[in-house]
Amino acid sequence: MKLLVVGSVAFDAIETPFGKTDKILGGAATFIGLAASVLKTDVSLVSVVGGDFPQKHLDLLESKGVDTSGIEMIKEGKTFFWSGKYHNDLNSRDTLVTEVNVMADFDPKVPPHASASEVLLLGNLHPSIQLSVLEKMETRPQLVILDTMNFWMDTAWEELLKMISKTDVITINDEEARQLSGEYSLVKSAQKIHAMGPDYVIIKKGEHGALLFHEGKVFAIPALPLEDVFDPTGAGDTFAGGFAAHLAKTGDLSFNNMKSAIIVGSALASYTVEKFGTQRIEEITTEDLRRRVADFKQLTTFEIDLYFD
Amino acid sequence: MKLLVVGSVAFDAIETPFGKTDKILGGAATFIGLAASVLKTDVSLVSVVGGDFPQKHLDLLESKGVDTSGIEMIKEGKTFFWSGKYHNDLNSRDTLVTEVNVMADFDPKVPPHASASEVLLLGNLHPSIQLSVLEKMETRPQLVILDTMNFWMDTAWEELLKMISKTDVITINDEEARQLSGEYSLVKSAQKIHAMGPDYVIIKKGEHGALLFHEGKVFAIPALPLEDVFDPTGAGDTFAGGFAAHLAKTGDLSFNNMKSAIIVGSALASYTVEKFGTQRIEEITTEDLRRRVADFKQLTTFEIDLYFD
Repeated sequence: MKLLVVGSVAFDAIETPFGKTDKILGGAATFIGLAASVLKTDVSLVSVVGGDFPQKHLDLLESKGVDTSGIEMIKEGKTFFWSGKYHNDLNSRDTLVTEVNVMADFDPKVPPHASASEVLLLGNLHPSIQLSVLEKMETRPQLVILDTMNFWMDTAWEELLKMISKTDVITINDEEARQLSGEYSLVKSAQKIHAMGPDYVIIKKGEHGALLFHEGKVFAIPALPLEDVFDPTGAGDTFAGGFAAHLAKTGDLSFNNMKSAIIVGSALASYTVEKFGTQRIEEITTEDLRRRVADFKQLTTFEIDLYFD
Repeated sequence: MKLLVVGSVAFDAIETPFGKTDKILGGAATFIGLAASVLKTDVSLVSVVGGDFPQKHLDLLESKGVDTSGIEMIKEGKTFFWSGKYHNDLNSRDTLVTEVNVMADFDPKVPPHASASEVLLLGNLHPSIQLSVLEKMETRPQLVILDTMNFWMDTAWEELLKMISKTDVITINDEEARQLSGEYSLVKSAQKIHAMGPDYVIIKKGEHGALLFHEGKVFAIPALPLEDVFDPTGAGDTFAGGFAAHLAKTGDLSFNNMKSAIIVGSALASYTVEKFGTQRIEEITTEDLRRRVADFKQLTTFEIDLYFD
């Protein structure tokens, strides 16, 4: 199956306890595309950049088999720019700068060759933009995956609910799931979010892993315990990208295969955090992925025989 | 193998968002003994209570096969009493009352028939008391399991380090592991704690599950996602009790069997939180345990085949 991704292609400037960067390549769609490229999934990105966006970044994506023909360049505009500083625990951060620039008027152009993609991943954007992409598809994709965040709950509630009602899989972090549902228990949160539309609810818990809920069933995966997290930027996008890319690559949209997809997403995300920005995920090979999937298997596998006199 | 447990047998008064109790049966050794009884493990408790402690509580433990002959009763004294109030998220609580009473001068008496127990679980107590028990054993147990908390890091650092140096398995929560090691990364925390003595480090993460570290290997288990947590009191003790009881019952102290022991502990703890205090764990049968272990298997099992062109 083909994977179509809509999201930001951007510049980031990042500061962590271990160092800082100038403007480097970032953006949700970038991380998603790079994650998909590790799996050699047929993937197209839809985004917008300004005239300041270097051709070498597009070349990098193309060299990895990522179709960038849906990335519009507005010559007279500037590329979306985000700058943030992580706290010492790397679990929280302050946004220093957000320059929306050309993303302010983002009108996604879905290339004709990608408009019948079977899997659509809508990266974190204004829900009206996400909705407009769905309307531009030639056929309704077999799987619509939505990433969103609390910002849209605060500023675009009605549009967000409409977008969620048209979604098959939602990925959301634990605090956002609580805010969206008004329930503290994540089991109850997932139930309420199911009722809003999505058959599959993925709750991301960062260093604590992720949960997948579907029809009263639940799958849980811990994160790989890492000696050092260098830079968490892009981990959630890499996770979503690996997840969607595995489903598209295998063409199997079952609950069981979604479990595997979550492992793939988690394995790739565990690489992304090892260096600044996209540096690490750019280097990852299929063999690296295979190795880390094996680590996850070892991390979580147990045998148990219950005795009892 | 035999399991010997040293810890508090006490009264608790608990308030949660769902209700409150008068003085009810509590204490670490109580939860541990009840957890061990589900597995029909040969278990003896060492503790101290006051003259106000009802015989019916001892009868309950005995009826479940828990040896209470090592619970000293000081007729003129009063039983340890703790009262606490949980916040709405149930992840934090305020202690309202702590009356140490007879625990202030607790001088553990190890019954002769239990002094050669192969597995020793030292519940959360002053490290000097924990050390004194180790010295009273006829032979050094094959496995010494230590539970401790931040309070002893703040008030009895030297004794705690001495106790830890004589420990095989330490169970500690994530914040305490960070405090004990001075490292934020739990992987690095575990490395530092290994260097203090224990070959096995279990880091408890509450609703996020637990990690087991041993010789550079790590095992991770998520907690079972529950619709409602009613009262978290005793969950950590039930976990430690199920863990130790499984090891003693099977007589297998390998890393692989410790993974199974963590599943058993997690399964039993997931029951404890369903009602106030010991109410729920008192009811649990081996069939209940078997069922929840199956839930854990389903929660965490995945199959994955990696393709790649």
